[in-house]
Amino acid sequence: MHQTHDIQILPAPVIRLIEELNRLPGVGPKTASRLTFFLLRAPDDLPLALAHALTALKQQVQLCSRCYFITQGDLCAICANPARDQRVICVVEEPLDVVAIERTGVYRGLYHVLHGRIAPLEGMNREDIYFDELLDRVRAEPVEEVIIATNPNLEGEATAFHLQRALAPLGVRVTRLARGLPTGGDLEWADPGTLGSALEGRREM
Amino acid sequence: MHQTHDIQILPAPVIRLIEELNRLPGVGPKTASRLTFFLLRAPDDLPLALAHALTALKQQVQLCSRCYFITQGDLCAICANPARDQRVICVVEEPLDVVAIERTGVYRGLYHVLHGRIAPLEGMNREDIYFDELLDRVRAEPVEEVIIATNPNLEGEATAFHLQRALAPLGVRVTRLARGLPTGGDLEWADPGTLGSALEGRREM
Repeated sequence: MHQTHDIQILPAPVIRLIEELNRLPGVGPKTASRLTFFLLRAPDDLPLALAHALTALKQQVQLCSRCYFITQGDLCAICANPARDQRVICVVEEPLDVVAIERTGVYRGLYHVLHGRIAPLEGMNREDIYFDELLDRVRAEPVEEVIIATNPNLEGEATAFHLQRALAPLGVRVTRLARGLPTGGDLEWADPGTLGSALEGRREM
Repeated sequence: MHQTHDIQILPAPVIRLIEELNRLPGVGPKTASRLTFFLLRAPDDLPLALAHALTALKQQVQLCSRCYFITQGDLCAICANPARDQRVICVVEEPLDVVAIERTGVYRGLYHVLHGRIAPLEGMNREDIYFDELLDRVRAEPVEEVIIATNPNLEGEATAFHLQRALAPLGVRVTRLARGLPTGGDLEWADPGTLGSALEGRREM
């Protein structure tokens, strides 16, 4: 990744930071180098504040003991909020999905973060994600509906299928996010799968 | 930059890291958030190694006492190398410019890093960059030629002009990087300024 000249003339800490930044997704050698030289020029507080924030992330953030969203305490802000509807659990793959759904402002129930999806080809099976923990919650909590909000792709659908099969015997209502045309989208540009889902899921006006 | 819901549900260290990353050039709120959640999932060693590299950058890297390139010791790798031609100094604006010129493999002289350029409108004057330090070097060292390699833009040209005027009385040869068509470029797409420079700088074949 680095040419010989760089290694000969750049101080070791500079090369190390370029290499560490290069490990981040979407950060190639050029961007890593640009960021490093920016940080060299920046006032001391910027790289040090970033270093502290990185250290604090791993030391202070853990998973909620109930829903596996991220939290500083035992329960996350959503589980700890008694105003949330305790009868609905929305199942998502990753913590960022919770943020996305919260942004809509239309959901007032709880969450369950799987931290992955079932993808046998990648070695991800039911026991590698928080799958059985969801079943335990449905048995123990006053849950009436589980909304499956895994991603609308192959692995997400497979995960939804396994969840539905496992939840059915527990006597809870299982729903899935609607498929259809994206708001603001253009029918002409919709892919056949999306358009097909929109037709199948058509509703009375 | 963050909507209310994010702040309500995300732990403080997560928000802090998103905000710190967001201060980097080219990293918007979405990228900062994506990187933060990647780091949350990543093995412990990755964010901690990055934190250490950031801390080391400021603690261990300083400017070369002679040419102001970056170094871990007193002199940078180039100034400390007796095989470099001590009679030529190439003047650049930023440390990354040294890396770019070294990559060409055609230059064997020394450097002088100004750490900026003269831009009065931005409050950058001669005394805000390592301008007079270059004059001191030319007086004290066995320099025969100064190659001005400031950027080929308005501020870079203005800086080159001031350098040339200040260096002329010192009896040293002052040259400027050639302007012309970029290698691999297409004449049809060259801007008028570049094409004009290429015509003016034409050479015997």
